[in-house]
Amino acid sequence: MQRNIKLTLEYDGTGFNGWQIQARHQRTVAGEIEKALKKIFRKNIRLIGSGRTDSGVHALGQAANFKTTSPMKPDQMRRALNANLPDDIAVLKVEEVLAGFHAQYSVRSKTYRYTILNRDVRGPLQRRYCLVYPYPLNLRRMKEEAKALVGRHDFRSFQAANPSRDEKATTVRTVRRVGITKKGDFIHIDIEADGFLYKMVRNIVGTLLEVGQGRLPKGSIRSILAQKDRALAGDTARPQGLTLVKVEY
Amino acid sequence: MQRNIKLTLEYDGTGFNGWQIQARHQRTVAGEIEKALKKIFRKNIRLIGSGRTDSGVHALGQAANFKTTSPMKPDQMRRALNANLPDDIAVLKVEEVLAGFHAQYSVRSKTYRYTILNRDVRGPLQRRYCLVYPYPLNLRRMKEEAKALVGRHDFRSFQAANPSRDEKATTVRTVRRVGITKKGDFIHIDIEADGFLYKMVRNIVGTLLEVGQGRLPKGSIRSILAQKDRALAGDTARPQGLTLVKVEY
Repeated sequence: MQRNIKLTLEYDGTGFNGWQIQARHQRTVAGEIEKALKKIFRKNIRLIGSGRTDSGVHALGQAANFKTTSPMKPDQMRRALNANLPDDIAVLKVEEVLAGFHAQYSVRSKTYRYTILNRDVRGPLQRRYCLVYPYPLNLRRMKEEAKALVGRHDFRSFQAANPSRDEKATTVRTVRRVGITKKGDFIHIDIEADGFLYKMVRNIVGTLLEVGQGRLPKGSIRSILAQKDRALAGDTARPQGLTLVKVEY
Repeated sequence: MQRNIKLTLEYDGTGFNGWQIQARHQRTVAGEIEKALKKIFRKNIRLIGSGRTDSGVHALGQAANFKTTSPMKPDQMRRALNANLPDDIAVLKVEEVLAGFHAQYSVRSKTYRYTILNRDVRGPLQRRYCLVYPYPLNLRRMKEEAKALVGRHDFRSFQAANPSRDEKATTVRTVRRVGITKKGDFIHIDIEADGFLYKMVRNIVGTLLEVGQGRLPKGSIRSILAQKDRALAGDTARPQGLTLVKVEY
């Protein structure tokens, strides 16, 4: 009998060329997991991720699924996978799910966290997991502007300059929450949405950094959204600061 | 005029053979800083640390000092040092201090943090900075037993089995605080003392893990302290989980 298996994954994106890419001989997260699946089940198994994470982007709760006819118990699969995966990937959970479950199409919401180390010296312990931003940031202003992102909007202005996707696909998404919190010198920007355009979080973060620096007037984010022009938003923040925290179904 | 300069340092211990070792051609934290000082001041400068950290042990607030006759301003030194140091070391602060200040002898207290990831799967994002401990831990019991550590005691039982130091040196230290806190799957053990014996924190952590697992009866830590016998305490916890958080003068 065909079974549908869902994985919850943590990984350090530093050593990967993203979740999955077309080119061969590049180390990818999905590629490493598919190699482990092949070792365990002695078959080529295609892994479906909730979406691709870019090179350098991390995950604390990425989700994926695959089909198998193996009778192996989920917990046994989890142990076998962790034993066959490298140190920078861990399978946190293995669950058997309904046949209709699809890691990408069944997504209800995703939460990303972007981490900024707001000081003028690099952070050796966090250097793979944050953006070091040396200029003062006005958090109150950032929080105020970020409110304009919440809700159902066309996020075309925050899409990658050269999206590789279908040009006709909708760029409307619903952002459920933007949380901006400070802990010591670290600032976390958490964004939950029903889906994200390519580089959307990093473009939003780049724009919020300009807001925090006082380089954009009040009402800018609302206006950038309305004008649907990528050229108006800020730079794309570096991938190292980004972590896919949670995928909900 | 001879000036005395104090440094506050953060480093990722993963890529170092500790703070300083005798053997040449090994990469050490002090060695890298002395190399940078030589480049900046064109002289051999001896760096004095608050104490040595072992291979793999990290620091968020290590302290060190050196003497120089250079008129360079502290902030300029900080920029020059950070520009000449590798990514895994950062100079957070440079201060001119009184001639009598000695990074090792003037210490009033140090605080170490030991981080445990208490789950049965490795943590890719934290793999260099914690101990993964897969068995359930009774935190209430650990906190209760840890109280016996606080105060002025002979910590001989928690000293390294083969201390390289003077055998006649005192093994009496004053522990000011032991804090055990849980955040998600992470457990932090914070210990503040006027000084630490070699491997003392890691041996205390190894013993607290046995306490948490219920393998040591109530009153064990008090009894281990009283018997002054290293063989009674737990295993030495791995260095990766240890961070020198703060040195006070």
